[in-house]
Amino acid sequence: MRATVMYEAGDVRVEEVPDAAIAEPTDALIRVTRACVCGSDLHPYHQMEPSETGTRMGHEAIGVVEDVGSRVTKIRKGDLVVMPFAYSDGTCEFCREGLTTACVHVGFFGNEGTDGAQAEAVRVPYADGTLFALPVGEDDALMPSLLTLSDVMGTGHHAAVVAGAGPGKSVAVVGDGAVGLCGVIAAKRLGAEQIIIMGRHEDRTALARAFGATDVVSERGEEAVERVRGLTGGFGVHSVLECVGYAQAMETAIGVARPGGAVGRVGVPQEETIPASLPAFFGNVAVGGGPAPVRAYIEELLPDVLEGRIEPGRVLDRVVGLDGVPEGYRAMDDREAIKVMVRP
Amino acid sequence: MRATVMYEAGDVRVEEVPDAAIAEPTDALIRVTRACVCGSDLHPYHQMEPSETGTRMGHEAIGVVEDVGSRVTKIRKGDLVVMPFAYSDGTCEFCREGLTTACVHVGFFGNEGTDGAQAEAVRVPYADGTLFALPVGEDDALMPSLLTLSDVMGTGHHAAVVAGAGPGKSVAVVGDGAVGLCGVIAAKRLGAEQIIIMGRHEDRTALARAFGATDVVSERGEEAVERVRGLTGGFGVHSVLECVGYAQAMETAIGVARPGGAVGRVGVPQEETIPASLPAFFGNVAVGGGPAPVRAYIEELLPDVLEGRIEPGRVLDRVVGLDGVPEGYRAMDDREAIKVMVRP
Repeated sequence: MRATVMYEAGDVRVEEVPDAAIAEPTDALIRVTRACVCGSDLHPYHQMEPSETGTRMGHEAIGVVEDVGSRVTKIRKGDLVVMPFAYSDGTCEFCREGLTTACVHVGFFGNEGTDGAQAEAVRVPYADGTLFALPVGEDDALMPSLLTLSDVMGTGHHAAVVAGAGPGKSVAVVGDGAVGLCGVIAAKRLGAEQIIIMGRHEDRTALARAFGATDVVSERGEEAVERVRGLTGGFGVHSVLECVGYAQAMETAIGVARPGGAVGRVGVPQEETIPASLPAFFGNVAVGGGPAPVRAYIEELLPDVLEGRIEPGRVLDRVVGLDGVPEGYRAMDDREAIKVMVRP
Repeated sequence: MRATVMYEAGDVRVEEVPDAAIAEPTDALIRVTRACVCGSDLHPYHQMEPSETGTRMGHEAIGVVEDVGSRVTKIRKGDLVVMPFAYSDGTCEFCREGLTTACVHVGFFGNEGTDGAQAEAVRVPYADGTLFALPVGEDDALMPSLLTLSDVMGTGHHAAVVAGAGPGKSVAVVGDGAVGLCGVIAAKRLGAEQIIIMGRHEDRTALARAFGATDVVSERGEEAVERVRGLTGGFGVHSVLECVGYAQAMETAIGVARPGGAVGRVGVPQEETIPASLPAFFGNVAVGGGPAPVRAYIEELLPDVLEGRIEPGRVLDRVVGLDGVPEGYRAMDDREAIKVMVRP
């Protein structure tokens, strides 16, 4: 079959690899019908050291179940399923608590030893815990929005939940990428009163406004902090969604938080420490978040997607075939596309 | 009057200063009947640069109101009052939310421009918001425990609240100083099931056990993390109270937290950044906390002190007069005393 392999920074290839196949009795094999390129794929695209064997890429998919192992009981051949970016057994204490990304058997797609989703097919471990069967056909018009339940919509939702977004609350979203835009949707959906998107790409902030953002702050650093304070009676926002992962973004996030507020971070941290320890301390600002348990959120978010109340699929503004994946990386890296959908 | 002044690291003097007096119509003047030396006073005791004028020291007191300004309406001459370490107006939006340490008029005793509590008298700004009148006499046997409501008991409680300590939860307390010991009391009081005190002073960990600690971990660093994991089924604790303030303590705190857990930090951070960003992120561990709104907690904690259900005053294991304050600093610095009470 064909799959996407990254060999070093900037070197993404689509090539023949051994066919994906069931290896464990709890596995399923899915034929990928939709995948995408993630903002987090751009980190290795910038930094990956050369590798002889390369790394399979992609961790977000919708697909059709082609085969299941002997111990798979809930997921069936022919199901159309969402594949979240992490697999999880669905039965351990963390899965039962809803923190599927801390599952005792957790693993992440597009890594050493796992298949990647930017491919024709994927072996899915712990299929019963991992996959979520959809009640629609494989070419349903809602496909882009459903695909975001595999990562970015659930991730934006996680940031909003951790940051305590809700009725009467003011929210700032740091980062206007796909996750930040989904964070705006999530904050709006949870009832936030004021939603400030912090970003400088006009097409993206326009989409943020369409999703419910009430204010746009395009400044950076200390100027951005002053602008947000000016928009919030001088004190900052209750909830900050940090959707970038760089120290400067976190410093801004802490800077715009109101005393007693919270930062929900979902951008994969690119540094060893969290900056602004003292401002966070003296403001009693909490910093939480991490890999979103998107599997656990699908049940909550799906009805809003199916009934059209939220349209996170609008962040997928370019579509490519499998051959177009390398070009998709380039387009996202050059900020020509917000997020690229792949139709293998 | 006589007051404690620090001139540089290690140089603490008790000397004549101008009498404290009402300066604003919202002030009260209190005669200090009890004060104490705080673990946080040891930071300048180690690090303070030489100063010509020196800094007044002390921020925890019980005292008798000697005089009030013309706009003080709730606090009256003759009241015996708890003076929390921070003053607050009691009326702004943060005070109404219970975050008195973010009051728009907040200030901290024992700093530039304020009186210190290790003294005969103190001018208290925003007396109606700041002071809490006690229903007992000035020599009541409960005085040590009541005095802890000015800081360490409320601070330990804050750490426990921020860390989500409660019924069925496992808790680790990093630091066996007065705040850590009060954190044990707070965790027990909030219903925690397992309370692990992390410290290496046998007299202190023995007191922690008396306060409700179920386990003692005297190792440090990676060994300590392994021990706590071993005591908690391999995963760590739900709630960590970080009561030290050094980066190594925070690293340990994040290391012993269970995925999805929370760290409540109340030790004043001595570094610019928070360590262990990646472990905290990948474990979805939240780091919160800051200066405790002890004024807001007095109402909740006082009945338990008055009725003897908690005895935080046991952390005050040495008593000195005002002249004995410099010796009190030395004794705490040498770990001869957990916390020193001052009777001016």
